This record gives sequence, C-alpha cells and structure tokens, in this order.
Amino acid sequence: MWVERYHTNFRVASADKLNFGMDHLGRLERLRVDISDKHLDALVVTHLPNVRYLCGFTGSTGVLVVTPKKSAFITDGRYAEQASEEVKDAKVVIDRRPALVATAEWLAKEKRKSRSRDVQILGIEESLTVGARKKFADALPGGFRMRIAPSMVENLRTIKDSDEVRLIRAAVDLGCRLFKTARQTIRAGVTETEVAAEMEYEARKRGASAMSFDTIIAAGERSALPHGRASGARIPASGFVVCDFGVILAGYCSDMTRTVHVGPVSEEEARFYGAVLEAQLAAVSVVRPGATAGEVDQAARKVLQKAGLGRYFTHSTGHGVGIEIHEAPKVAADQEVELEPGMVITVEPGAYVPGAWGVRIEDMVLVTESGCEVLTNTSKELITV
Amino acid sequence: MWVERYHTNFRVASADKLNFGMDHLGRLERLRVDISDKHLDALVVTHLPNVRYLCGFTGSTGVLVVTPKKSAFITDGRYAEQASEEVKDAKVVIDRRPALVATAEWLAKEKRKSRSRDVQILGIEESLTVGARKKFADALPGGFRMRIAPSMVENLRTIKDSDEVRLIRAAVDLGCRLFKTARQTIRAGVTETEVAAEMEYEARKRGASAMSFDTIIAAGERSALPHGRASGARIPASGFVVCDFGVILAGYCSDMTRTVHVGPVSEEEARFYGAVLEAQLAAVSVVRPGATAGEVDQAARKVLQKAGLGRYFTHSTGHGVGIEIHEAPKVAADQEVELEPGMVITVEPGAYVPGAWGVRIEDMVLVTESGCEVLTNTSKELITV
Repeated sequence: MWVERYHTNFRVASADKLNFGMDHLGRLERLRVDISDKHLDALVVTHLPNVRYLCGFTGSTGVLVVTPKKSAFITDGRYAEQASEEVKDAKVVIDRRPALVATAEWLAKEKRKSRSRDVQILGIEESLTVGARKKFADALPGGFRMRIAPSMVENLRTIKDSDEVRLIRAAVDLGCRLFKTARQTIRAGVTETEVAAEMEYEARKRGASAMSFDTIIAAGERSALPHGRASGARIPASGFVVCDFGVILAGYCSDMTRTVHVGPVSEEEARFYGAVLEAQLAAVSVVRPGATAGEVDQAARKVLQKAGLGRYFTHSTGHGVGIEIHEAPKVAADQEVELEPGMVITVEPGAYVPGAWGVRIEDMVLVTESGCEVLTNTSKELITV
Repeated sequence: MWVERYHTNFRVASADKLNFGMDHLGRLERLRVDISDKHLDALVVTHLPNVRYLCGFTGSTGVLVVTPKKSAFITDGRYAEQASEEVKDAKVVIDRRPALVATAEWLAKEKRKSRSRDVQILGIEESLTVGARKKFADALPGGFRMRIAPSMVENLRTIKDSDEVRLIRAAVDLGCRLFKTARQTIRAGVTETEVAAEMEYEARKRGASAMSFDTIIAAGERSALPHGRASGARIPASGFVVCDFGVILAGYCSDMTRTVHVGPVSEEEARFYGAVLEAQLAAVSVVRPGATAGEVDQAARKVLQKAGLGRYFTHSTGHGVGIEIHEAPKVAADQEVELEPGMVITVEPGAYVPGAWGVRIEDMVLVTESGCEVLTNTSKELITV
C-alpha cells in the first residue's frame, strides 16, 4: 500500500456522497454555542469522525477550525478534489504543509486581520497526540494558548438527526441479515473463524465497507469470554455460541449480539438464557427521555442479581453507536447523563460463568419522544441449531 | 459489542501464544542503551504495538514502564490471566485503576524506594494523546518531568529478528495466495468490492485475523487513484486493475500490489506497464546494507523520469512493514536512513494518469547481509485476464 504523496498535483478518489444532505450548518451552529459558552476563540477539530460529522469530509488528512464566525477546513493537495466535493459550510484551504502547521498559519492570519491584541484560547481535542500538539505549538506564533476541550463534538454527536437515523437503520438491517448467515453456518465441528468468514463475506457482498469491530464468535467454554474474537476453535457438539458483530455501511456502524445453542438445551441453560433475556428486556423497558444511562444499566443488573447471576455480569450494559462503534453516552453504573430523543444506544447485558458458558443479548435502541424503538429486528428467543 | 468491565474478577481470553520464543529480553536491553543515552529515568510505553514488541502482551489495555534496571507491565484485572501468560521479562502489576494512573503510582513508589531527590525524567511517546497525558500528569506526584521521546521503540522495530522474519514470510505467502483469488475473480462486469470480498473471504479461511488495510481494487479509470479502495464500480471490458492488499497473520502484516489488465493490451499500455516494472526492479536492485532509503526511492524515480512519467509518480517508493502496516523507515526522497540487514520494506513505485489509467507494482523486500531478498513470490509480468 502506498503511503504518501510526493507531488501535490494529483486527482484523488472522488467523494463518496455519503454526507449528501446532512445538516452540517446546524451542527456547526450548535457547536458555536458551546464554543462561546466555554470562552474559546476557536476549536481545532482533529478527530476525523468529528471532522466528518461537522463538515462532511471523509478523507484521512485534514483539520477543521471553527471560530465563532468562521469555519475553515485545511488539507493538502491530495485531497483538493475530494474536499471541494464533500466539504459543506466551511472554507476549504489547500496547503502543501502538514495540516496542523497550515492551521497555525491560518489562525495567525485571522488574528492579524482582526487586529486583536488579546491572547486567543484555542480548544484542542483530547485525542490529539502529544507529538502533533508539539508540532502545532511550534508552528503557532505568540498570542495563542491551547486548552484541552473534552468531548465538545462528541456530545453533539450523541443526538442523531433523521439522516443519521436512516443510515443507522440500514446498517442495523444488514447486521440482522448477517445473523441469518451465522445461523446457517453454525454447527458442531465448524471453526469459529469459518462462521465469521461467511458473515464478513456476506457483509462485503451487500455493500459494507468493513466490519465495525472484530467479529466475536465464541462457542462452548469460549462463550464465557466477552473478549471471544472468532478463533480457530471448533464449535462443540453442545453449548452456547455468542455471536457479536456489526458492519460499517455508508459510514455508520451497527452492533448486535445473539446467543444461539448447539444441541439440546438443558434446563439450567434455559434458565440462564432466560435470565439474561429478562435483564435485556427490563433494560430496554426503561429507555425513555429523562431516564439516566445509569438507570438502564441498573435495570438489567437488578434482574441478574435477583437470579443469582449478578457477579457473572462483568461489563457495562451498553454504549452509544454512530459514526464510531463506541460513542457517548456510556450505559454503565452511576452514569447520570439523561437520555434524549435521537440517542442511539446498545442494550447488551450478559452473564459469563468462567470455564462453563456465557450468554449475551444485544439490541440497538433509538430513544424516541415517547420512549424508545428497538432497531434490531431479530427475535431474541433461544434458537437451537 | 460489550465495552468495559464492571467487576474485575473475570477470566479473559487465553493468550494467543503468538509471541512464544520471541527475544523480548534482548529488545529490552537494546532499548535500555537508548534510554541511558537519552538520559531518561524511564520510558513509559503506551503505543500498543510497542508494548507487544517489548513484552509480548497482545491485549488492548496496558502500559509498559522501562527503567534502566526494571520493567513493569501495568494493566487491570480483566487482563490478569492474559498478562501472566503472555508477558515476558517484565513484572506484571494488576491494578483496578486506569493504567496510566497506576503507572504514576508505581513510578512514585519506585522513586521513594530509591530515596532519590533528583527530578526524574520520564520519556513519553509521540502517540500518547493529550487527554491521556493530562490524566497521567495529574496522577504523578512532584519530582517528575515528562519529555516526548520520539520513535525509540519504532527505531528498534525496524530491524526484524529471525522469529519476526519467519512470521512475515508466512503473511507474505498468504498474500500471494490471495492474488490467485483476485486473478480468478477479476473479469469485466464484476464489481471491485466483489473481488475484494472473495480475497478477504479466502484470507479469513486461511487464518488471517484481518486485512492489514482496506483492500484496494481500482479498475479502469479508477486505477489512476492510488486511494482507490474497492468500490461498487464494475470492472470495464478493457483496462488496468490495480490490486493492493495485505493480511495480518499471527500478528504480522503483509503488503503487495499487482496490476493486471482486462482485455487486449495496447502498445502504449504495455510501454507504460514496462516502465513501472523497470522502475520497481531498479529500486529493488539498489536495496542493500548501507544504501539509503532515499537512494532506493531515487532509483525508481529516475527510471520513470527517463520514460517521461516522472510527474505521474505521485507518492513515495515504500515503507517498513511488520507489526504495523506502516513502520519506519520511510522509503522516500531525501531519506538518509541507511538500510540494515533485517529491515523489511516495500518497494512500490506507480504511475497514474488522471482520468486514464494507473499501474503500481509492489513487493516486500528483506534487507540481507549481502543485498536483499524479495519476499513476494509472485510474477510481475503483465497478466491479462
């Protein structure tokens, strides 16, 4: 794979049109309210999912600077064509130097134009690396100060607008299709990776650009590993198989888990599965505007504790999903963030008995005005294959 | 996909045994020479490929601290079992707090034990985020100073030892197999993604954990895009198809490019392909210990300039490959780093005429004592499908 441009006079891949019609201007305006509340003179957006969310650019190099009145997207000549096609509501600046060096220059020029003598406060994102921060600092003239401004764009991104919900639905639907492939493939003797390979092949053929994370197929004793990425292990003649997977389709992620059973289900297994399912349904039932993320977690946890399985529920109940597979809000104990219409979260309790078995059931759920809608349109009854 | 642990008393996925027999102690000793040369009291290794290289840990959370005399690997309870199985030549510290907070505590304790009153200089890596740096700084007591220490482990990693070369060979061989799949799949009317899907399916079935980057299948006019990730575009009745792809197998990456042709080849196309091939062979022919990376780039560039195609060669000639797909050294103009036995680089000149066509040819090459060995065992003659 080639790495980097040598000259800059090059046409690049044409835009994906993924962001066509997205409300970038509205997003920028909402961000500006926060920029002003935090007394920043500019926010320097370097986290690429945030750049894309705010201005539509889907490439891999570029910086978006947002001031109370202006927005500039700064990249190099490789991305000139892509930027001019994709970037909305921000001025595109093409510069052959590294993007943060060019950003420093742009900020300095704006400051000169404004004739301001005040020190300007630049918000930088938590994900900026110390190496990049140093190069940026070295390129900035006097009269600027940097301040880490955590989660400003991430917080906006928690509320999905209708265009985003449409894309998320499509990704979730493709995920549900893959579960059919899983059901058709899982049988005793097949390796976990073979199942994952068939699912990923199907995803690719149906337009996914990639899986949203390493596919988890964890069979038999391995079902007790929440980490259980598909391995070379063979599916045993009897036991649970946890299938946790998702796709990236048109830039948005899906995420779902179903646990199936190979061979006859014992009474104990059925009870165990039933408790996890009850916990999942209980958690979904409290999802509504005004409920806290912590309450959703608590609802699942309470059911499993009552069933005597509390200590086997070793992770949090869920997380936001969108452009990235893991977004705000966290759905975990003591999270006080209140759910709002437009949030999309996973609800995925599980219980894992080391050395024996595990079960996890996960849906993606949209918070609506009146409650919630489960987006994952696949039965949660225990399936035997 | 679940995100994070709620309790810590959980068995995690068993170790992959990928690092069995690797010379971690030798690597740590070489790093210590550099730590002492740079007058650091410790290097705080947070970049996970570096952590893995130095101590064998393949999980996704943990910090390795290397002082002139000690090494400690710090992680949380989720990874206790995996760390005890995988980590070599470093003391494993399990702590329920975030790893960098626990690292600060460990460093403070060591300082107290040493009864030193000197300010201690901690090297941090360029890839550390400003958010993580701040949490680390907040957790450190007085008496410490941080200094960005660029590329210390990355420089060690440029020289592959024999265990690494063995794994890289296996990854490259699997890559070559996938090219057979590509040849069998590419034909007029098939979409680029369908070709990629078949290759990725094959890779998965043969044990790859993932592709090492998004598969590039760029047909017809799209062959002129070095960025040309496989798209929904159909392969035309005639023209070049650039295939650039690689796998991750047992933790090591492969990377290769071949350009095939659909339909009859015109004289101009044959000349164009021939020039790129000549450039590639010329670059490979200068790979030997003592040659600079810049000279390898220059050798390819000279051939293309002579053929009147210099301005169409818009990227650098190559890069190192190993645990990561892009590693040091860069094989680009003016790079003065001298090649050494054990380095593994790509040699991948290309030429791209916007709106018309493009050709790229890429091998992985091992620098040997006496010259080099091309690892990619696949013909570079122009193939018509």
